[in-house]
Amino acid sequence: MASPVTPPRGMRDFLPAEKARRERVLARIRSVYRAHGFDEIETPVMEDSARLHSGLGGDNEKLAFAVMKRGLTVDALRSAESPLDLADLGLRFDLTVPLARFYASNRGQLPSVVRAIQVAPVWRAERPQKGRYRQFVQCDIDIIGETGVLAEIELIAATTAALDALGVPGCNIRINDRRLLTAWLEAHSVAEELRGAALITLDKLDKIGIDGVVAELEALGVTEARAMTGWLEPVAGEQPSGSWSRLIDSPFGDSDAARDLLAIRNALPTVPLVFDPSLVRGMGYYTGPIFEVAHPQFGYSLGGGGRYDGMIGRFLGTDVPACGFSLGFERLIDLVDLGDESGAVASALVYDDTIDVAELVALQRSLIADGSRVRLVRRPKNLKVALEQLTTEGFGRFAFVTRGATAGSLEWRALESTT
Amino acid sequence: MASPVTPPRGMRDFLPAEKARRERVLARIRSVYRAHGFDEIETPVMEDSARLHSGLGGDNEKLAFAVMKRGLTVDALRSAESPLDLADLGLRFDLTVPLARFYASNRGQLPSVVRAIQVAPVWRAERPQKGRYRQFVQCDIDIIGETGVLAEIELIAATTAALDALGVPGCNIRINDRRLLTAWLEAHSVAEELRGAALITLDKLDKIGIDGVVAELEALGVTEARAMTGWLEPVAGEQPSGSWSRLIDSPFGDSDAARDLLAIRNALPTVPLVFDPSLVRGMGYYTGPIFEVAHPQFGYSLGGGGRYDGMIGRFLGTDVPACGFSLGFERLIDLVDLGDESGAVASALVYDDTIDVAELVALQRSLIADGSRVRLVRRPKNLKVALEQLTTEGFGRFAFVTRGATAGSLEWRALESTT
Repeated sequence: MASPVTPPRGMRDFLPAEKARRERVLARIRSVYRAHGFDEIETPVMEDSARLHSGLGGDNEKLAFAVMKRGLTVDALRSAESPLDLADLGLRFDLTVPLARFYASNRGQLPSVVRAIQVAPVWRAERPQKGRYRQFVQCDIDIIGETGVLAEIELIAATTAALDALGVPGCNIRINDRRLLTAWLEAHSVAEELRGAALITLDKLDKIGIDGVVAELEALGVTEARAMTGWLEPVAGEQPSGSWSRLIDSPFGDSDAARDLLAIRNALPTVPLVFDPSLVRGMGYYTGPIFEVAHPQFGYSLGGGGRYDGMIGRFLGTDVPACGFSLGFERLIDLVDLGDESGAVASALVYDDTIDVAELVALQRSLIADGSRVRLVRRPKNLKVALEQLTTEGFGRFAFVTRGATAGSLEWRALESTT
Repeated sequence: MASPVTPPRGMRDFLPAEKARRERVLARIRSVYRAHGFDEIETPVMEDSARLHSGLGGDNEKLAFAVMKRGLTVDALRSAESPLDLADLGLRFDLTVPLARFYASNRGQLPSVVRAIQVAPVWRAERPQKGRYRQFVQCDIDIIGETGVLAEIELIAATTAALDALGVPGCNIRINDRRLLTAWLEAHSVAEELRGAALITLDKLDKIGIDGVVAELEALGVTEARAMTGWLEPVAGEQPSGSWSRLIDSPFGDSDAARDLLAIRNALPTVPLVFDPSLVRGMGYYTGPIFEVAHPQFGYSLGGGGRYDGMIGRFLGTDVPACGFSLGFERLIDLVDLGDESGAVASALVYDDTIDVAELVALQRSLIADGSRVRLVRRPKNLKVALEQLTTEGFGRFAFVTRGATAGSLEWRALESTT
């Protein structure tokens, strides 16, 4: 017996039932996004290494799988100063850096406002752990070329419609704005050079609590740490909708950021939008509104996004407004099970060695032409086990085929009743 | 202006229209294969480097993209004896090696006969040229666990049904058997150690012609080269169906291989099967019937496959019969254009800055709920150009939206008539 053979560490095979389940959910997401006027695009799984490591991917850049140059000599290995010298390509760690590159490459052929769907795998060399994989699927929609908040509104409307279509109820959308975070830090005299570190601390609020945030801010040298964090927490007894009063009544209530957030809220009265002044989102490239899907049952978000107006300019040389929303498919798929709605009857033709193969194949063809899914099954020693397996694989009926059988003469038996 | 930004060499972006066209064709192929009782599976894009380089991939192994180990030190670069020492993973160069690994990993959860669909990208570091890419899609079906020719029959029936469903008419299936090739070499006293090289020569028949094959065989030391190649060529005036008489009337007419090929032909009377004694197929792992899709208009095949009974045993330690058929999607997609059959009306709502955004978004939502695909379009300076672009993107109608508009009050105009 050979030693166990497994997929690479942190990566998964998908067997038929799970693959079909995933594809049904992805098809539903694509369909909702298409209905909202978005179009699917595709980029290669690899990008030039220099572009992946251009500083736009934050910590994820360190997790990129590097692809070695072809035709390397041993001398090249000897003279390399770092492993990255030997790599010219890398696997994408997200869909945003490739989208920015895609837009820069194809701008001349694209409409003035691009609404892109990307449903595709990404790779990160993370330490494998429960629910975290080295190859996983992201579902992103992005709008490129729209300056106004209608972009954010469309993204949030389409994403919440997708969650509804998947039957994931009870999600809130938490929303904040990078400009508000900056104004808040300014208002409390946090020096510019400390602001990046202060936001990284704030981003840990869920894990370390408000006292932890205060302690870390004080350690950074922020003098008003205790006073300033009052802004982050709900007023006692506050309803989610009450979060907006705090924004409106705050010193930031008249800012551009507040005006944009309120315009988003007013345009989406049916979406449970919660203003959350503590929302940071990790990526450094965000420049305006940021948002996250929070599910009350789970301690993690199901997706998030925001405006990143400066990013595409990095590749194109001229700034282009952009905004995106990404759903974390691997978290969603654990919550969702859509039934098979294809409507086609799945039929098994059970045969033995007395059959005429030409007849059997012709019979299969005629049943397929009538809209059935048809599997040929050699009669096994243990018929009961085989029929149970067919049931779990979604087959609804079976018939024994004997010589001379025609589609009309088959005696179908329902598969449910045999188990 | 920044320098041109392009995808990696030999790889492609797909813009919305092309992406949609590809997905429609892939959906049709999947649907036909599913109807024939096959199930889609998925494996990671990477496999362990040692498995990719186990000798099963033939020349393609040399074209594999290697993925570098993470956390390599400069010392590790210095002490490596070959570049492959620095790689622990690689991108798959075909779907057959991963399938064999998949079967070995998951055998306990799979039925006794597995019918697998794989529609997925593969990567080869080939010199880019017209119609040849470094990332491309293959569509494979495989049957694992079936010893008899019913496997070959099912694969050929499903593949020709897929070609029919795509509207690619006029394809022949050329068929031969590795055992016949061996018997033919034996019958002409070609020494065992020369047979591999002789088959490589024979595989070049299309390029170098029969005289070229004879010359190369003679150079190898084959003494009966001229006499033995008569078997490869059609008899003058022979129809495709006549190819079978040559097999039946030949010294090999009573062999197991001939019996299997004739059983395949007899089971598929509606498929244009041509016996082609010169068909070799490059891969060394084939053990029985081999086949290829030939289109009369093209000098290349649209796909091919065969039986590879020994391969899975390499990973599993115990032999398992297997047989597969692969369609070359990148060649097919150039021949096929399926119309959009979703049936949903695609509508554009043209708005300007006087609009109430909440009203606009509510209007979009109500139209989507009625089954329409709806894109919001800010009224541009040049409306005519924008409407023409919407037409090319498949939109069928548009309406101007003003304050207070409802779904009932919109005046729709057909988009075709505006161009």
